[in-house]
Amino acid sequence: MCEASAYIIDGERQELIMEAVDSVEPEDGGYKLVNIFGEQKFIKGTIHSLSLVDHKIYLQKSA
Amino acid sequence: MCEASAYIIDGERQELIMEAVDSVEPEDGGYKLVNIFGEQKFIKGTIHSLSLVDHKIYLQKSA
Repeated sequence: MCEASAYIIDGERQELIMEAVDSVEPEDGGYKLVNIFGEQKFIKGTIHSLSLVDHKIYLQKSA
Repeated sequence: MCEASAYIIDGERQELIMEAVDSVEPEDGGYKLVNIFGEQKFIKGTIHSLSLVDHKIYLQKSA
């Protein structure tokens, strides 16, 4: 499986917010993350970057 | 390996722009895509959504 872990980046800090993320969909000025277990999380912000071989998604909260 | 294919979405249409994408990094009002072969492509736009289990990244060009 090729799901990834999602992190919020805040300066130097990275906070893991969800593991095994499958889909990331735009919603209400942010993104809805859904993992392979069907868990959902909404993040008000943007997708900062991806590193898929490392299985990582980086998001950034909007101010 | 868990790289993905990158598509530009334009209404109903999806255009494949790069296969085997590893990293997507913000750069100059857009994103630089790099695939596992070291090829690079710059897209002026935003990341629309992700479907990682399907190995798909969707981008949207800015107007």
